[in-house]
Amino acid sequence: MIRFECDYTTGAHPKILEALVNTNGEACPGYGVDGHCEHARAMLRELCQTPEAGVHFLVGGTQANTTVIAAALRPHQGVLCAETGHINVHESGAIEATGHKVLGLPACEGKITAEQIDGYCQAHYDDAAWEHMVQPGMVYLSLPTELGTVYTLAELEAISRTCRKWKLPLFVDGARLAAGLAASDITLPDLARLCDVFYLGGTKAGLLFGEAVVIPNLNLDFDFRYLIKQHGGMLAKGRLLGVQFEAFLTDDLFLEIGRKEVAQAMRLRAAFEKKGYPLFVNSPTNQQFPILPNEHMAALEEKYSFEVWARVDEGHTAVRFCTSWSTTDGDVDALITDIQKL
Amino acid sequence: MIRFECDYTTGAHPKILEALVNTNGEACPGYGVDGHCEHARAMLRELCQTPEAGVHFLVGGTQANTTVIAAALRPHQGVLCAETGHINVHESGAIEATGHKVLGLPACEGKITAEQIDGYCQAHYDDAAWEHMVQPGMVYLSLPTELGTVYTLAELEAISRTCRKWKLPLFVDGARLAAGLAASDITLPDLARLCDVFYLGGTKAGLLFGEAVVIPNLNLDFDFRYLIKQHGGMLAKGRLLGVQFEAFLTDDLFLEIGRKEVAQAMRLRAAFEKKGYPLFVNSPTNQQFPILPNEHMAALEEKYSFEVWARVDEGHTAVRFCTSWSTTDGDVDALITDIQKL
Amino acid sequence: MIRFECDYTTGAHPKILEALVNTNGEACPGYGVDGHCEHARAMLRELCQTPEAGVHFLVGGTQANTTVIAAALRPHQGVLCAETGHINVHESGAIEATGHKVLGLPACEGKITAEQIDGYCQAHYDDAAWEHMVQPGMVYLSLPTELGTVYTLAELEAISRTCRKWKLPLFVDGARLAAGLAASDITLPDLARLCDVFYLGGTKAGLLFGEAVVIPNLNLDFDFRYLIKQHGGMLAKGRLLGVQFEAFLTDDLFLEIGRKEVAQAMRLRAAFEKKGYPLFVNSPTNQQFPILPNEHMAALEEKYSFEVWARVDEGHTAVRFCTSWSTTDGDVDALITDIQKL
Amino acid sequence: MIRFECDYTTGAHPKILEALVNTNGEACPGYGVDGHCEHARAMLRELCQTPEAGVHFLVGGTQANTTVIAAALRPHQGVLCAETGHINVHESGAIEATGHKVLGLPACEGKITAEQIDGYCQAHYDDAAWEHMVQPGMVYLSLPTELGTVYTLAELEAISRTCRKWKLPLFVDGARLAAGLAASDITLPDLARLCDVFYLGGTKAGLLFGEAVVIPNLNLDFDFRYLIKQHGGMLAKGRLLGVQFEAFLTDDLFLEIGRKEVAQAMRLRAAFEKKGYPLFVNSPTNQQFPILPNEHMAALEEKYSFEVWARVDEGHTAVRFCTSWSTTDGDVDALITDIQKL
Repeated sequence: MIRFECDYTTGAHPKILEALVNTNGEACPGYGVDGHCEHARAMLRELCQTPEAGVHFLVGGTQANTTVIAAALRPHQGVLCAETGHINVHESGAIEATGHKVLGLPACEGKITAEQIDGYCQAHYDDAAWEHMVQPGMVYLSLPTELGTVYTLAELEAISRTCRKWKLPLFVDGARLAAGLAASDITLPDLARLCDVFYLGGTKAGLLFGEAVVIPNLNLDFDFRYLIKQHGGMLAKGRLLGVQFEAFLTDDLFLEIGRKEVAQAMRLRAAFEKKGYPLFVNSPTNQQFPILPNEHMAALEEKYSFEVWARVDEGHTAVRFCTSWSTTDGDVDALITDIQKL
Repeated sequence: MIRFECDYTTGAHPKILEALVNTNGEACPGYGVDGHCEHARAMLRELCQTPEAGVHFLVGGTQANTTVIAAALRPHQGVLCAETGHINVHESGAIEATGHKVLGLPACEGKITAEQIDGYCQAHYDDAAWEHMVQPGMVYLSLPTELGTVYTLAELEAISRTCRKWKLPLFVDGARLAAGLAASDITLPDLARLCDVFYLGGTKAGLLFGEAVVIPNLNLDFDFRYLIKQHGGMLAKGRLLGVQFEAFLTDDLFLEIGRKEVAQAMRLRAAFEKKGYPLFVNSPTNQQFPILPNEHMAALEEKYSFEVWARVDEGHTAVRFCTSWSTTDGDVDALITDIQKL
Repeated sequence: MIRFECDYTTGAHPKILEALVNTNGEACPGYGVDGHCEHARAMLRELCQTPEAGVHFLVGGTQANTTVIAAALRPHQGVLCAETGHINVHESGAIEATGHKVLGLPACEGKITAEQIDGYCQAHYDDAAWEHMVQPGMVYLSLPTELGTVYTLAELEAISRTCRKWKLPLFVDGARLAAGLAASDITLPDLARLCDVFYLGGTKAGLLFGEAVVIPNLNLDFDFRYLIKQHGGMLAKGRLLGVQFEAFLTDDLFLEIGRKEVAQAMRLRAAFEKKGYPLFVNSPTNQQFPILPNEHMAALEEKYSFEVWARVDEGHTAVRFCTSWSTTDGDVDALITDIQKL
Repeated sequence: MIRFECDYTTGAHPKILEALVNTNGEACPGYGVDGHCEHARAMLRELCQTPEAGVHFLVGGTQANTTVIAAALRPHQGVLCAETGHINVHESGAIEATGHKVLGLPACEGKITAEQIDGYCQAHYDDAAWEHMVQPGMVYLSLPTELGTVYTLAELEAISRTCRKWKLPLFVDGARLAAGLAASDITLPDLARLCDVFYLGGTKAGLLFGEAVVIPNLNLDFDFRYLIKQHGGMLAKGRLLGVQFEAFLTDDLFLEIGRKEVAQAMRLRAAFEKKGYPLFVNSPTNQQFPILPNEHMAALEEKYSFEVWARVDEGHTAVRFCTSWSTTDGDVDALITDIQKL
């Protein structure tokens, strides 16, 4: 079975693993205040050109989303996001469990627009019953989105302007940001300039686990470590996160991994298109969503793992193929060959 | 100004007020365990033909909804309802504040169907990522709905069957149930038979305040008074609720009030239709939603208060007129005359 | 049975009831924005000499405590209070249900001191594991306390200074403030000057229900009505609160009621002392806690209702007698006579 | 600097690290349903002699405590524990953040008794205001406690009987259970028989991270994975936990590590006692709490890291020395030598 079902099927990228092995015997203070964490923080601040930003290393994406949103909102506030946003669909109600409504906006290929945000806020305050409704208190985007699409820099700038107009912190979920940076015109300094908080995901880009939360807005950073502890995110052996991110940020390994993931995905995409499969969504990143005839899907399932995404019609199904840091040329070649044979 | 903006603009129905005045000097134990509360409980159980049901008197609707839902759900569960449901729109996130997602279903004139509930549950458990999603844990209906429409007995029976199939408690918000009983073929014993919990609202039917929660499903009733206290609903002078509901239930005063509200609304509706105003929604209860030319709306606003509901097009607006226990024939006559003159 | 078990056994003071009856037919807007509420707000601001303070009318004490505390705290913060504080003991976990720990301090006759608060905060920030602990985020006092005792102005000033030193909002629960004002040297303007938020309770001083929350600290007042709605405290017929507080504040009726409650209690206290019963706590307000021989307690229980408070030793029990607005001279005379006969 | 400040200063035990390295290239399904997790589950069930128990692997202790307690309690319930319990002191209010009060009982050397639990429950239901108080809904113990002490099997059996009498699930926090098993007469099968849920901690016994939650009470296990996801505990590369626990459970490595930790601690303890230092608490496990003269403390701090625990008097301080899987004979020899020289 060759696995394309997600981008976290294997362990760590060799350079990450090597760093963990090499530092295993060191004795460090716990809870993320060790030298490796401090070094990784400094590296990330420099890459983002935000010398003052808060940087915190968390274990996973749901944890990062929950902690950030709970830290930012007052009790009567909700978080605006695409209806397809991860926090709205796939976190078992983690945001609601902290007391906050997720305010889903209709999404186009996983994305929302500055105009939608502006309209929602205007409508809220125009409504005579505004105090009986959940106040929009934050905006959450995913980059790339859950459908693999990316915002352009112009789109992100427009959203950022709208957020500042309404005094809404802007939060970018970067669980797959390594791939996103490879496929968009947005850079880390852009994110640091336009967002109040965002994270660079490691789990889906070759780390064993780990998400680096960057908080350029220092108001949001205040007392943030209490919140990390409260949400179960303060890893006792915090140095594991520091060590991995040191390696991940060294020589732009994160970019190299992101680019490689995307390049393999583009090879797959070309093969789907050549075969005449329509794409369910136009994704420029490491998730690809071809619409397959059901009998072709069945044939591929014998040798490859991938996700069934959505039933399209009686005879066709949209599926998802994911590439990862460990996807080999051979894996992709095999699949391309098998597609052509179908 | 003649007020049609809602059904809680005035104080209490004379019989309710009289009961409060007559009992004002009595000394009773607090917190709803006095003789008046016990008597009102017994009356309601008899009306519902549920000799065993739990009955609790709460102050308001948001409080009732929050307490019931928080009592019923486990942390990973959400409550299915119409997207237009009160809990989804107009409670400032009260349900989410107790940790639970409101799972909004597309509604038709404020109503949802057994098929929608069944489909949602089926899809949840069919999804490979089911454990990453909020589990449907309860169904919430409003009778009448927020748009004044009512379920038929057949519809409610179908929904009840579906809820039992999926082991979902069925909860009916009866904030305007007095009007709903007057306009549907559903009776209190039907509700007690088909629901796990429902309430008969007093606030919008001539009480100063008060909602009577009936819990035929004794599993949901277990320890319910702790939850009332926790949600701020245990009124110190609880006898105020008992006294009001005794009067409300005596000689079917609640039905009389509901019927009167509806009758006045039907007179208004006939006037709107005669004038040729389309109806935004086809409501058989005490909320009526004519679509007015904007200049007619402006003219009526000089003498009458009513709610702007929705912009329909450049020249027309849907508005809401509400009748209440205190709406007089004269109030309605005046409005009808003024409509005809427009 | 003559009832001394609590101060909310009867309905409303005649002047309050009269105001409700007289205004019953008026049609007002809902949710506390009517003219009566506005007038009562203005009266209270003037009595407090705080022309800018937020004023909100809520139904009950648990609701007031929960709403205020939830509005003030961030998720990692807790509220400091006496271990015997109402929020720590008798609200079924309402504060915890909003996510916050109640940080109980050892109390002396229901009171805590500025030194205790200062010491707790110092210890928190001195602890190496501070970020792993609940941060003190607010101070809650009751005036009078749950044991009937009162803070002096000097004590309250010291606590206020300490709170400002540590940037902790100071919240005074005034469920029995009418009696407290009658028995301490603290005035409403003192409370407005020294606290960030406090309330004047009506339920235990002759209203049907109602607590008037005063928020001199406008940061805490921001968006407060959303929180009221979320916590089920936004009464549809909000004018009921406005009407009652108008009457309560007119000609200092609240002070008159408080003083009368206290005067009757002092008569009882004198009788207990004359009889030689020790007092469990030295209360100058309308709750009195004599320690009775068990056979005397049993004898009195035949004719009077009162609360068993604490077992003192094999033969003696501390009990609580409460006076209220409706306690008559005759009630007290009868009890005094029966005590003397024992 | 030789580190004795805690038992998680270094990385993984060589056998754990080796297992991670050896399996790094495998492609597995995510979220804990891979073969390694299944195998580790089976191993643990066998060690506990509970073929049916639920077994779940979580990342850390706060996460495990929060998830278990939130899964078990209804909203009006709290969790009984020692006042010194980790959940009451060092989790930044994580339990309260899920809505539940921690009901702290006075502890003796970190332990509570069956009698205390029984008395608390009896008093709760005897109180006339029981429904206004937080209902005891679960009992939480730590084994070893936060002070290194252990329950005896007889004590645990008595507590278990009391819990079953009051229908309270019994939850044992085993963050340091490997050391606890080495120092008490309690076995894994005892825990599985007497508790409703407990965990075997890996973080403090040589894993990179990981706690294995065992749930013999299947009612508590129902839908537990939703709760894991909601609390951010569902590790994407879940196999990391399975792989580590496979190694940890193979050939009783966990017992070997626990015994070694304890043996090194006993050598330290003997040195403290020989030197005449009193012990702050009588701990038989890997945490030792000598009371040092302040100048000796200062002298040791130059070469060793350890925790300041409590000020005892002007000249003496209780400190904590922790041994771990990676504490070497040389580390301990050096410290013993330096103690003797003081």
